[in-house]
Amino acid sequence: MNKDTLELSKEEMKAYGYSVVDAVVAHYDTLNDRSPIATGNRKEMDHLFLEEAPEKSSDPKEVLDFVIDKVMNKGAIAAHPKFFSFVPGPSNYISAMADTLATGYNVFSGGWSQSPPAAELEIVTISWLLKIFGLPVKKGGGIFTSGGSMANLTAIVTARGVMCGDDFSKAVIYLSDQAHSSNIKAIRTIGFRKEQIRLIPTDSEFKFSTIKLKNAIAKDRLEGYHPFCVIATAGTTNTGTVDPLTEISKICKEEKLWFHIDGAYGGAAILDKKGKELLKGISKADSITVDPHKWFFQPYEMGCLLIRNHKHLKSTFVEKPEYLRDIEGNESEINFYDHGVQLTRRFRALKFYMSLKTFGLEAFRNAITYNITLAEKTEKLLRKSSQWEIVSPATLAIINFRYNPIGNQLSEKELDALNQKISESVMASKEAFLVTTVLNGQVVLRMCLINPRTSFQDVKDTIALCEGFA
Amino acid sequence: MNKDTLELSKEEMKAYGYSVVDAVVAHYDTLNDRSPIATGNRKEMDHLFLEEAPEKSSDPKEVLDFVIDKVMNKGAIAAHPKFFSFVPGPSNYISAMADTLATGYNVFSGGWSQSPPAAELEIVTISWLLKIFGLPVKKGGGIFTSGGSMANLTAIVTARGVMCGDDFSKAVIYLSDQAHSSNIKAIRTIGFRKEQIRLIPTDSEFKFSTIKLKNAIAKDRLEGYHPFCVIATAGTTNTGTVDPLTEISKICKEEKLWFHIDGAYGGAAILDKKGKELLKGISKADSITVDPHKWFFQPYEMGCLLIRNHKHLKSTFVEKPEYLRDIEGNESEINFYDHGVQLTRRFRALKFYMSLKTFGLEAFRNAITYNITLAEKTEKLLRKSSQWEIVSPATLAIINFRYNPIGNQLSEKELDALNQKISESVMASKEAFLVTTVLNGQVVLRMCLINPRTSFQDVKDTIALCEGFA
Ligand SMILES: Cc1ncc(COP(=O)(O)O)c(C=O)c1O
Ligand SMILES: Cc1ncc(COP(=O)(O)O)c(C=O)c1O
Repeated sequence: MNKDTLELSKEEMKAYGYSVVDAVVAHYDTLNDRSPIATGNRKEMDHLFLEEAPEKSSDPKEVLDFVIDKVMNKGAIAAHPKFFSFVPGPSNYISAMADTLATGYNVFSGGWSQSPPAAELEIVTISWLLKIFGLPVKKGGGIFTSGGSMANLTAIVTARGVMCGDDFSKAVIYLSDQAHSSNIKAIRTIGFRKEQIRLIPTDSEFKFSTIKLKNAIAKDRLEGYHPFCVIATAGTTNTGTVDPLTEISKICKEEKLWFHIDGAYGGAAILDKKGKELLKGISKADSITVDPHKWFFQPYEMGCLLIRNHKHLKSTFVEKPEYLRDIEGNESEINFYDHGVQLTRRFRALKFYMSLKTFGLEAFRNAITYNITLAEKTEKLLRKSSQWEIVSPATLAIINFRYNPIGNQLSEKELDALNQKISESVMASKEAFLVTTVLNGQVVLRMCLINPRTSFQDVKDTIALCEGFA
Repeated sequence: MNKDTLELSKEEMKAYGYSVVDAVVAHYDTLNDRSPIATGNRKEMDHLFLEEAPEKSSDPKEVLDFVIDKVMNKGAIAAHPKFFSFVPGPSNYISAMADTLATGYNVFSGGWSQSPPAAELEIVTISWLLKIFGLPVKKGGGIFTSGGSMANLTAIVTARGVMCGDDFSKAVIYLSDQAHSSNIKAIRTIGFRKEQIRLIPTDSEFKFSTIKLKNAIAKDRLEGYHPFCVIATAGTTNTGTVDPLTEISKICKEEKLWFHIDGAYGGAAILDKKGKELLKGISKADSITVDPHKWFFQPYEMGCLLIRNHKHLKSTFVEKPEYLRDIEGNESEINFYDHGVQLTRRFRALKFYMSLKTFGLEAFRNAITYNITLAEKTEKLLRKSSQWEIVSPATLAIINFRYNPIGNQLSEKELDALNQKISESVMASKEAFLVTTVLNGQVVLRMCLINPRTSFQDVKDTIALCEGFA
């Protein structure tokens, strides 16, 4: 170890790197057999980790062993086959190693001149996604972001710039009450007041009500507001519901509104035949958020914003300081720092590129079809039982259900408490990561089945576990 | 390879992982001997990489070999000892491997419940930084971000929320004309109009002029504006200049303004004795941006926002959707998604933790002192020569100079062209990455010497190279 230059010798680097790989491989190799759940409160964690910044060096291997033992193996496992909550992170090993290359070479993916191949692979993979989603490949564009939250923020800033210019004091934006909270957070972050947000109620199937949308737009125009953007969701996080995209696109066209579609989790379903049917109309969007770190099986972080007209990103985000002036490329050589908020950017495209090249799009497609079918099989299973009620049917691999045996005398409140209790018991058993959500005021269990490693047996075991606790 | 689950066998994973490590080790081991410069225009890159998304799978090793050869070894090297431009990315191997663990285990660092140790290590490392910068460790807080751009954005959104609430139509914000462009980008992104930004001229030493700042504030108040925030820079990107932090902090106190300090690149100098002296007053800030992926030797991406009162982050960013309700922890168990824009977040803290534990703070401090001293030696060297003029002296490891031999008859315009030409020739030689910047309307050469692997000989060779071309 050379502390002056913060370097290890070649031999030290190799040994250290192999140990890291061994740990990651062991993680992948054993994850099915471990618990997906983590525990530990602040006090316990403080006890383990809280200390002053160390002044002196330590043996690299000791630090590594401590971290593997006490940190890495003590977290929840988002890629576990029984991790059913939130949006799981199935990931894949090839992409994890691609990220190692990107970080190991410390590739700067901000400006073309600092890595032409990195910029190019972002252009190429974005063009793959444009084509998959039916946006114009030549005129369209996009950017990889840290995740769906930043992709949505980038989209809304762009929509605001294009539709409102500098004065957006009267602008209003529409989204459904099932839209993901990151949209509201983004809208508030970029300076809209609460009164500028219209949360349109969903219908009984949790879909954006277009009648109510039209009414709201009309009312706003009468009151002197400036409607400028609708955000539809292609796969709501709660229920997997796809908003009526074609209808909304027509409204946006008539009313001259920017049409953003948040397909952060659900967008990937377009690779599946049924999914494509459900997502019909997505190609009408002005911009689409899709998160490769969700259902495109990439590790964190990787979100993506696709856009119908690539010029809109640059016109929104370009800011050029003096010390970057020498590296203005020609128009077709994209400096991605001009297309979004970040200046320094890691080389996110690489993992998407390498995993697609290695497994092939076909494998991704099959995995997604498998996931969608698995949720449908789960729905059938639950429907056959007299104990379970389907609250929201299997859609894009998400299903919501609750324990509600036929003929029981429980009040709504008691049912809520019971289902809450079931979830808590499952979590306490550490067998499966399964938490509740609220739909129409009811506490329900929710399964998001986007992990290709999840088997039908995993689902059956978990439902049996729930029944046991009930 | 199991395409159904996008998995490799244990043996395949190991072999693949070791190959990746071998490539990264070879990169570190040979980078001093390679060129820091990349070339390739869009046409060449399209020719190499543009293709349709592959439907079928490929041999993993073939994809890997192609990527190492055509992508990884064809980028500029931000960690190269002769990469003098922008802000170099020296990075370090331990942190690169720490990132491999974070990605390999796909750790979600959004909510406490998904990885208590990950959240804890963010708390612990942030507390180290709070202490280093003299902010209150108990009451203070912070968050790791994708970089300085997002840290600045997060700071300004927070300042706006705390100081203005929802209506910021009359709010104005002050920064110097040497402030980093990411600040303006952030200010515009979050919805301020151009007229709400006051770019205060710097004095002859590129420092924020406090007299002009005071005048501007007074004038704005008279005109009915609402001054709410000053952004000072602790290490400007152009010249390394530190604004008069103590004076500005006094103005902010008197005028009740939020005081943000952008120390993205320069902040790390606080570990050095002289640097600490220069950065005096930094502990008066309400918020500080510092980028570990710059002078704290971390790989991309890692920015950080530190804040005097941690409650301000949560009150600004919390948004709670239904499906996250089960995981509300107790107050002291931080869900970092409530403290910034991102919901999904990678485990950035790990690399900072592991590299500090391994090398020790002392090694970081020594490296930073070495960098500052190296720039001072470079200044002395240039001053001894009759050919070079120092345009901005060595400050926080940055120095600006231009070729301007004593007694030459060249006009300003000709000198600009000459220095531009020198930079272009150096770049064309592929020996060193050295571009120009503009100071006081003059084209100058700029060296940012924050890489501990850069030797004085590297600097001397590069200056000799410049003289040769001149
Ligand atoms: C529909 C939708 N949009 C946006 C997001 C936010 O994405 P991220 O967590 O990557 O920021 C999510 C996350 O679950 C989502 O499901
Ligand atoms: C002073 C300063 N602030 C902010 C930034 C932006 O940081 P990042 O590139 O990590 O977004 C930089 C980058 O050079 C900088 O020097």
